[in-house]
Amino acid sequence: MSVNALEENPTSSQTGAAGAVHAAGAAAASPVTPASAAGRTVARLLGMFGAPAVEFVLWNGERISPPGSTPVATVRIKDASTLLGIMRDPGVRFGDAYSDGSIQIEGDLVRFMEEVYRGSARAQQRKSLISNLLGRLLQSAPRRNTLGGSRDNIHHHYDIGNDFYSLWLGRTMAYTCAYYPTPATTLDEAQDAKMHHVCRKMRLRPGETVVEAGFGWGRLAVHMAKYYGVKVRAFNIAKEQIAFAREYARAHGLDRQIEYVEDDYRNIKGNYDAFVSVGMLEHVGVENYRELGRVARGVLGGNGRGLIHSIGRNYPAGLHPWIERRIFPGAEPPSLAQMMEIFEPVNLSVLDVENLRLHYARTLRDWFNLFEQNVEKVRSMFDEKFVRMWRLYLAGSEAAFTTGTLQLFQVLFATADNNDIPATRAHLY
Amino acid sequence: MSVNALEENPTSSQTGAAGAVHAAGAAAASPVTPASAAGRTVARLLGMFGAPAVEFVLWNGERISPPGSTPVATVRIKDASTLLGIMRDPGVRFGDAYSDGSIQIEGDLVRFMEEVYRGSARAQQRKSLISNLLGRLLQSAPRRNTLGGSRDNIHHHYDIGNDFYSLWLGRTMAYTCAYYPTPATTLDEAQDAKMHHVCRKMRLRPGETVVEAGFGWGRLAVHMAKYYGVKVRAFNIAKEQIAFAREYARAHGLDRQIEYVEDDYRNIKGNYDAFVSVGMLEHVGVENYRELGRVARGVLGGNGRGLIHSIGRNYPAGLHPWIERRIFPGAEPPSLAQMMEIFEPVNLSVLDVENLRLHYARTLRDWFNLFEQNVEKVRSMFDEKFVRMWRLYLAGSEAAFTTGTLQLFQVLFATADNNDIPATRAHLY
Repeated sequence: MSVNALEENPTSSQTGAAGAVHAAGAAAASPVTPASAAGRTVARLLGMFGAPAVEFVLWNGERISPPGSTPVATVRIKDASTLLGIMRDPGVRFGDAYSDGSIQIEGDLVRFMEEVYRGSARAQQRKSLISNLLGRLLQSAPRRNTLGGSRDNIHHHYDIGNDFYSLWLGRTMAYTCAYYPTPATTLDEAQDAKMHHVCRKMRLRPGETVVEAGFGWGRLAVHMAKYYGVKVRAFNIAKEQIAFAREYARAHGLDRQIEYVEDDYRNIKGNYDAFVSVGMLEHVGVENYRELGRVARGVLGGNGRGLIHSIGRNYPAGLHPWIERRIFPGAEPPSLAQMMEIFEPVNLSVLDVENLRLHYARTLRDWFNLFEQNVEKVRSMFDEKFVRMWRLYLAGSEAAFTTGTLQLFQVLFATADNNDIPATRAHLY
Repeated sequence: MSVNALEENPTSSQTGAAGAVHAAGAAAASPVTPASAAGRTVARLLGMFGAPAVEFVLWNGERISPPGSTPVATVRIKDASTLLGIMRDPGVRFGDAYSDGSIQIEGDLVRFMEEVYRGSARAQQRKSLISNLLGRLLQSAPRRNTLGGSRDNIHHHYDIGNDFYSLWLGRTMAYTCAYYPTPATTLDEAQDAKMHHVCRKMRLRPGETVVEAGFGWGRLAVHMAKYYGVKVRAFNIAKEQIAFAREYARAHGLDRQIEYVEDDYRNIKGNYDAFVSVGMLEHVGVENYRELGRVARGVLGGNGRGLIHSIGRNYPAGLHPWIERRIFPGAEPPSLAQMMEIFEPVNLSVLDVENLRLHYARTLRDWFNLFEQNVEKVRSMFDEKFVRMWRLYLAGSEAAFTTGTLQLFQVLFATADNNDIPATRAHLY
């Protein structure tokens, strides 16, 4: 695709035959050739991305949308340099342009992102040269998670501020997929239900010991200690979260049952009945899965079992590059085959995999609603650009789960010779 | 390991220091060096296989067992040439020698095989040169499953005779892992429960269409048609099974709802609501998984879903070579990562994986009991060698599941954009 086209005067008419169609309705009714070079560039961009049913409005008022579709949203592009940036690096620059306001989206942001994801999936199915290029653009080579790299990457996201997260994560401060047994379940109930679901899967018993890799704000450890009577040693490298978790456990008299350790999961040692990690694997990096497996296998005894809960994908494809660059540096959701790199080399036995992707869509919707309810506070803590960035991240993530672009895998496992496993999963229901 | 050692006179005493200990009890109490070269060879063999708690008795009366263990069974070796054969190719020749009676095993055959599998696992954990060799010996390069190869391989096992299989498979003639919700569940009830479990996982609805790859004696197709009101097109290449299934469907007035097709799964075409395959994947061969995935994806529409039920392993390791050679030519149980080669390249979404390995151990125990109840009939249909071969296969398979050497995976999947998926799995219980 020629970038030079954009350097032509975007308001000069380059086509003689087909006139510009400025009304979205008319554009949807019949294929037209946009009037300007910029318009034709946008049309090609839409084609590359599987012709999502969205309308673009250029700075000169020209409207472009795929023929035959009724747009779910309208995207206004501020100027030629914004479009040029997107053409150069659509994966990252579209999100940046939305964040700084050079792109405005009218209509439901989630429906817009769903259209983009569905279009991209259509484009990838064609398996053409263009879609292979697209595949490359839509995935990112994440920053490496060495011991030092992980510390930087985790600090970037999780140490934004506990006050900020407490505005929209709900009572539990759980920043992972919740579990909604019914549509009427609230966010807080669903987070509690998720923690019970995880504990029941592991069949935790009073007096047992659990090691947790990546404890967030610490509430799963509290839940396990309080409701299942286990002792927990929990690891995390995000300083603000650790301080928050320690204070909470002290205030609730659980600091003798829970030890929050500031250290990397790679340094976990000792002997435990169970190994649990909810929402950390996304940050581990596929290149470190074997080491994670060795750590998990190394601490589990004869009746050892564990659970890893992670965002995933249907095939190895990485994270959306804008999310990886601006929101979650180093993050990489694995395919199930990639996750098996944790278990297979150390002969851990996978007992149960559950895909909860629509639960994550609902979780994100609930977070988004709380975020919007508190958006003035967020704006006063940060700025408008931060608000828009976070909006795109939450809405885009919801759309990724509703369209099947992202998955949520809970993998229950046990040591290979552990025969103390229930005959059915009826105890979960 | 030197094979020449066996060519020495096995009755001549080669050791001066330690005398032969002939009593198993005494041998268990203290490490001893066996008197003969043959005895030392057996001791080395035991060491290679992780020192299982079994006692060997040689043709000269010499007894060898790992020090410090109480043997669960006694293995009598008829002569030097039997031992020589086992040393050359333990994976295949031990089973052959048991089948032809040159090896006799006193004690519970399942407990014996469990000891062997556990010992092998210990040996593999050591990850030494010897255990790598052992790993190679304990796995087999299966015969290729080309279209013609599959036909030969499947004929070898499944066309032994419907009369034979009906002696020990129970009422349903289901030759796959059953599902025992309670310990009191009988084999026939458990096979029915398995079929319901599979149908419920796929949420079959009246009027829907299902394609089945590898239908065995056809009872799952009958179950789906009868209890779930679906139309089934089912594929198989084992002639005796096909004739049996067609006759049964005709006799029960279901031949308008079920079409049994004699053809390879690779030739499945058309459009269906669901794709199901129970107990065929073991015969497909990992090299054909991508093609199987393309077939499954190709026939499923927007709300498409499916289930594949297969024996598996915790890591890629193939089948025991004796089983592959004598019982199931071409068979290869995959690891979960290997199974993902079916789904990931075609963007099918894995919703649920359940590991039912202890259910397969129980199924095999029930089959074994029926087999023994009917062993005189089996002997009259075949011969003593066949009886012993089948005994070893059933007992060894039970042990493989109780020790975690084999797994049983049920993988439920759906097209990537299918959002008609239940919030929880409560409907299964």
